[in-house]
Amino acid sequence: MDKQVTSTRIQKDMELFEPFTQTPGQGITRLPFSIEVRKCVDVLTKRMERAGLTVREDVAGNLIGRLEGSEPDAPALVIGSHFDSVKSGGNFDGMAGIIVGIEIVRMLRDSGTKLRNPIEIMGTHDEEGMRFGTGFFGTKAMMGEIDDEYLLRLKDSDGVSLYDAMICYGLSPDKIKDAARDYQKEIAAFIEVHIEQGPVLENSGTQLGLVNSIVGMQRYLVTVTGRPDHAGTTPMDMRIDAMECASKLISRMSDWAKEAGGEGTVATVGFVQAAPNAMNIIAQEVIFSVDVRSKEACRIDQIVGNMCAELEAVCSEKGATFKIDEKLKVPPASLDEKLLAMLAKSCCKLGLSHMHMPSGAGHDSLQTAPKIDTAMVFVPSKNGRSHCPEEWTEYSDLANAAHLVYDTLVSNYTHSTSKEAHF
Amino acid sequence: MDKQVTSTRIQKDMELFEPFTQTPGQGITRLPFSIEVRKCVDVLTKRMERAGLTVREDVAGNLIGRLEGSEPDAPALVIGSHFDSVKSGGNFDGMAGIIVGIEIVRMLRDSGTKLRNPIEIMGTHDEEGMRFGTGFFGTKAMMGEIDDEYLLRLKDSDGVSLYDAMICYGLSPDKIKDAARDYQKEIAAFIEVHIEQGPVLENSGTQLGLVNSIVGMQRYLVTVTGRPDHAGTTPMDMRIDAMECASKLISRMSDWAKEAGGEGTVATVGFVQAAPNAMNIIAQEVIFSVDVRSKEACRIDQIVGNMCAELEAVCSEKGATFKIDEKLKVPPASLDEKLLAMLAKSCCKLGLSHMHMPSGAGHDSLQTAPKIDTAMVFVPSKNGRSHCPEEWTEYSDLANAAHLVYDTLVSNYTHSTSKEAHF
Repeated sequence: MDKQVTSTRIQKDMELFEPFTQTPGQGITRLPFSIEVRKCVDVLTKRMERAGLTVREDVAGNLIGRLEGSEPDAPALVIGSHFDSVKSGGNFDGMAGIIVGIEIVRMLRDSGTKLRNPIEIMGTHDEEGMRFGTGFFGTKAMMGEIDDEYLLRLKDSDGVSLYDAMICYGLSPDKIKDAARDYQKEIAAFIEVHIEQGPVLENSGTQLGLVNSIVGMQRYLVTVTGRPDHAGTTPMDMRIDAMECASKLISRMSDWAKEAGGEGTVATVGFVQAAPNAMNIIAQEVIFSVDVRSKEACRIDQIVGNMCAELEAVCSEKGATFKIDEKLKVPPASLDEKLLAMLAKSCCKLGLSHMHMPSGAGHDSLQTAPKIDTAMVFVPSKNGRSHCPEEWTEYSDLANAAHLVYDTLVSNYTHSTSKEAHF
Repeated sequence: MDKQVTSTRIQKDMELFEPFTQTPGQGITRLPFSIEVRKCVDVLTKRMERAGLTVREDVAGNLIGRLEGSEPDAPALVIGSHFDSVKSGGNFDGMAGIIVGIEIVRMLRDSGTKLRNPIEIMGTHDEEGMRFGTGFFGTKAMMGEIDDEYLLRLKDSDGVSLYDAMICYGLSPDKIKDAARDYQKEIAAFIEVHIEQGPVLENSGTQLGLVNSIVGMQRYLVTVTGRPDHAGTTPMDMRIDAMECASKLISRMSDWAKEAGGEGTVATVGFVQAAPNAMNIIAQEVIFSVDVRSKEACRIDQIVGNMCAELEAVCSEKGATFKIDEKLKVPPASLDEKLLAMLAKSCCKLGLSHMHMPSGAGHDSLQTAPKIDTAMVFVPSKNGRSHCPEEWTEYSDLANAAHLVYDTLVSNYTHSTSKEAHF
């Protein structure tokens, strides 16, 4: 199969989604349960159907296109990634993995190959957690980890609950448990192709990354509460300034992450919101996010421990109070060694340079890995940039990933391996 | 004149304005050029007219109610304060000074007293600077200090220029120079009654404060620019994190203010805004306000100097850039000693306890003081609180201020002082 054909088809598909953004001219913003996501899902549905898949949307809003295999009751090979985005991000994060999946189905069709197992291309919903402050909603729902209480508790910045957002989007939140799959019976493997979102592959000139582990993550929203007094008439020693307390903490997060060391250890405060947020009023409240990751859980705990101790010390000194709201806590995960070996073998066969590497980003695979045989393939990110409008990956690199996963499936999940000879 | 009558009339007037807020249930929010301000001005107009004043709105949106004096060409005695508010503030800040002014006119009417000079009750517009990041707009316009360039340059957080906001509000920005008054000929004195917004009067059990100076102010918007990378995949040593840089600076502002010392020296970061402001993206940009005040200009300069040096150091170390946008720079002001002496004499005569004090807050008087004989009277703030929903001042304390200014006018600006004997 011609890699140029694959690359061109992937490019055409990818470009279909560029207009779907809530921030035109300022990158891709596709918050979950938005009109833009709905438009994406509609186009994805059409592309999947044209590739020959039978498409359904589950109760969480995940999109699943299925092609039956030759063995009626065999569990499915799921190739999935997410269609939602961060704010002002790029068009590749998530979407690339779905389109590569659809391309693999087209390659199977073009070569007349029938797998033993059904293949499912899955577009997952709300992986980024950009609207409700958490993440991996679609995959969690698939794993049966979402309940009513969760839907009602989580609210976006406008106070809209996840429950109500689902209704507005056309879903039935009361049936969320229907999104849960009997994955031990139904799913043989979960494979995610994703852009690296970091500089390692590009810097080392490697075509593909085979991910062997995903960093653990802890994510918190910290609220510091002071007293909103007049900025001019309240002497320095009579203030309870939430901004002062919060900034003393935020300013040390990076240093704590560096001190903790270890592979993939990072700490980030990306979100901050003050109230009443006026130039001449002392801040009553400052809310900020804390995102800590590492390949080793103990290093995450060390950074979070530093944060809690410092919050306690600063706030008690100044008379402020604080609240720490846990948004996400996922341990580091190891990916499936058997799948990794298959992928490595196909890389060698196809002459694609590759390396084993950890993932510093959380992914849907982080959710599935503890319970389903899971593999991830990374493709290079230009300048290592992601979650920004400059995010870019060459379509030919995505084509490499499509060929790799195609070959892995054909080599290991057909009755005969004779079809491989075509390539 | 019965102080209870005065107090009740002031209370009734003040309560008329409580419904006019953009944040019902969360204090008073009357941003300039808003519907809520327009409603306030309509009610103020009616109250002024009922008190016998001839009312006009100037091109800046200031409201001026005038009562002629017995001498046709005598300059006016202006009693003014502002009708706009901060976000989620109280109903007394500003408005109290206008209502006390209207009450003084009613007292003159009730006693049949005619002043030599015209009296003008002035409601000033956009003193707080809450929407366009500056302040004292109405008074500056009256002093002839606003031009077209200023109106077009200043923009609110939605990108609406002050120029366009004026048009929406029903004003003619092209005629802004018409708001300028020939104050040397037209205005004899500017007197502002205002809540203290601090704890000094209440703590010392003093009924009235005679303000002898107003702190100088410098206000800046600082923008720190970094690079928006993925919070998980970008190693700590490859980041340009605008939040880290900004927080290292913000966390030190309070300490610098304490180090600078001196009377009324404060520094506040009340506003912060990050972009893209997402939990899992390293901040590309953080904008924050810096508000520095002191009775001595050199101490303000010292704090601002520290800030600039630290910004330079932190940003150059991390590879970030920064921009400092000056929003306000007003030197400290001394108020008029002659008016202060008149007010002190009336306090003694009326048996009202009083003290001389500086103002830690900027006020319209800060704008007029360099060019017009200006006096300020402070009334106690409960618990020293202001710029918050808990802001409160007893109506009987406002009545004290009305009686004080009334007596000062009658004692010094009538042909005969015989009327005083009535009280």
